[in-house]
Amino acid sequence: MIGEAPSRIRASEADEHDFIVRALTAVHVRNSDARDVADVLVAADLRGVESHGIARLETFYVRRIEAGVVNARPAITTLHDGPTQFALDAGNGLGHPAGKYAMRKAIEKAGENGVGFATVRNSNHYGIAAYYAMMAADDGLIGLSMTNSTHLAVPTFGAKKTTGTNPIAVAVPAGAHPPFVLDMATTGVTFGRLEVSERKGKPLKPGWAVDAQGRQTLDPVAAKTTGALLPLGGYGVDNGGHKGYGLGALVDILCGVLSGGLFATAADVPETGMHGGIVGNFFGAFRIGALRDEDAFRRDLDRELETFERSAPVPGAERVMTAGEPERENTERFRREGVPIDERVAESLDALADRLHIAKLERFTVD
Amino acid sequence: MIGEAPSRIRASEADEHDFIVRALTAVHVRNSDARDVADVLVAADLRGVESHGIARLETFYVRRIEAGVVNARPAITTLHDGPTQFALDAGNGLGHPAGKYAMRKAIEKAGENGVGFATVRNSNHYGIAAYYAMMAADDGLIGLSMTNSTHLAVPTFGAKKTTGTNPIAVAVPAGAHPPFVLDMATTGVTFGRLEVSERKGKPLKPGWAVDAQGRQTLDPVAAKTTGALLPLGGYGVDNGGHKGYGLGALVDILCGVLSGGLFATAADVPETGMHGGIVGNFFGAFRIGALRDEDAFRRDLDRELETFERSAPVPGAERVMTAGEPERENTERFRREGVPIDERVAESLDALADRLHIAKLERFTVD
Repeated sequence: MIGEAPSRIRASEADEHDFIVRALTAVHVRNSDARDVADVLVAADLRGVESHGIARLETFYVRRIEAGVVNARPAITTLHDGPTQFALDAGNGLGHPAGKYAMRKAIEKAGENGVGFATVRNSNHYGIAAYYAMMAADDGLIGLSMTNSTHLAVPTFGAKKTTGTNPIAVAVPAGAHPPFVLDMATTGVTFGRLEVSERKGKPLKPGWAVDAQGRQTLDPVAAKTTGALLPLGGYGVDNGGHKGYGLGALVDILCGVLSGGLFATAADVPETGMHGGIVGNFFGAFRIGALRDEDAFRRDLDRELETFERSAPVPGAERVMTAGEPERENTERFRREGVPIDERVAESLDALADRLHIAKLERFTVD
Repeated sequence: MIGEAPSRIRASEADEHDFIVRALTAVHVRNSDARDVADVLVAADLRGVESHGIARLETFYVRRIEAGVVNARPAITTLHDGPTQFALDAGNGLGHPAGKYAMRKAIEKAGENGVGFATVRNSNHYGIAAYYAMMAADDGLIGLSMTNSTHLAVPTFGAKKTTGTNPIAVAVPAGAHPPFVLDMATTGVTFGRLEVSERKGKPLKPGWAVDAQGRQTLDPVAAKTTGALLPLGGYGVDNGGHKGYGLGALVDILCGVLSGGLFATAADVPETGMHGGIVGNFFGAFRIGALRDEDAFRRDLDRELETFERSAPVPGAERVMTAGEPERENTERFRREGVPIDERVAESLDALADRLHIAKLERFTVD
């Protein structure tokens, strides 16, 4: 989680990648698919989004494959392939290979026709939304990535969970400046923040969660067990909670309804008692040069981002940042210093290695 | 403003429309352009978004034309016209005709190639963002509409205003259910909410605004005069303020930078001391049938929206609503009962009529 001090236990990027591939191929995932998953999980850990990295390898992916809840070798089906739109059925396989495949289709279409969109249905958790948006930005395009998810959040004035944390990611390439990368859950906080509060014995902040009746609660246990997350903007409408709810619903419409997949309370597999569930994605790619001179755009975006970053901070704050900057700084640092692995995660990965009869993750300790 | 009891002073939709056209043609706006403005302002009042309706006719439009700050008869220039993208320079004219023209281009392109995008630069305040997104939904397409605006909001941990309220609107057509219409400022509240608090002598709520140093304030006067609005999610990052800031920055990138127009702190004309400023827009239209069977999509979206609306409300709340429902209910009611006109607004419109030598707005009073 961004903001916490990183673990002193580290792995190299390559070793983490190799370990993920070893674990997934051990449960019969194709090597190329396993590499796709590893790409996304390592990117999450490099960005400092530990909640979405190797920490989830066993619970979200390996165990679900072992239980037969996720297909290790799915039959992927193209549902539609038009000049600007593409639709995929992921065959209940891992979310990352399907997501990368669909995003590449959107990028291809944007190259040919200025813009491309792709949906994925019948898929599983695809990791950080930003990864796919950044694939487009790496190719010089504006990228968009959304996914629906297990339902964890109430609608405004609602007592029952109807949507997930349903993130939206947008990446925009700049010139000399690194890209603008927005990656945001449409809830105020993620479920992981409730877990952190519980672990630290701290109350939640107002606007984060509700209890079983949908009333605001500061109790992490009540929120986690029988309660739910609140949309971005918090409880009711005073601080714009209806906006976060609206964005979350929009993500569900594009990822669940438009894809022809599961949506609203159906986007879940509750009977398994496992993390994750059947989800859908929505991807977009937009070729800047199809609308405006690309160099001029990149120069102007540099100026825009610098305007924000040079703007005066509040007393006590170091500086103003733009979307993606903290994660980019983490990536540079962790590429140099090694990828932080939480101590308990490291132990659980050792146990996983023993169970799967694969070599353990190589790691070292920094001062 | 939605939520306040509507004025008992009413005008018919047709009479309000006629009055707006009379006033604008009196200051030499072309009749067709004046009708475009009237379409958007009347739609705002019908939806109950009084802050964006006829109340702004004089301050945002008539006076700016009279002062020569906005061109009554601008030279509109097509900057780019490709298979999926269109870019317009509005010649510093009124925002509504330029916005409608650009949105129609996006809709045309979506009809031909599955998706269409359009930017507008060098334009002025275009009214409610939802209007343009709904143009697409009325034609059976998913519509997107964004505008940047006069800078009123600080970035996360910033002390200086760098962006506007920068709204995002998305409209999605359903089947039997009315369309999903999300229209949200990317700030927690709009400037109008500070004015209401000041008028009522009430403190602001935390998360709405900051003072001149960028520190959170509950004082409406400090916030209005030397302070600024906070992004959706409030102060700092605890409740996701960085997400609202990121969304606001994204809107500025698409409306200001991609359009080749003004952006960040440049998107303003402070020297005039008037409301509004030079802005840009970003529009999109997406043909559902280019990706999925449209009837199946509409049926599923009905189910999605009904799932939300039938979901259990919190104790004390009547029901859960979906984006656009309160505004749709207002529209039905005000079409029947007449469009509410605030008493002070009605008086100012009479004074405007006298000054422009045009017939006054016909109105009546309801019980």
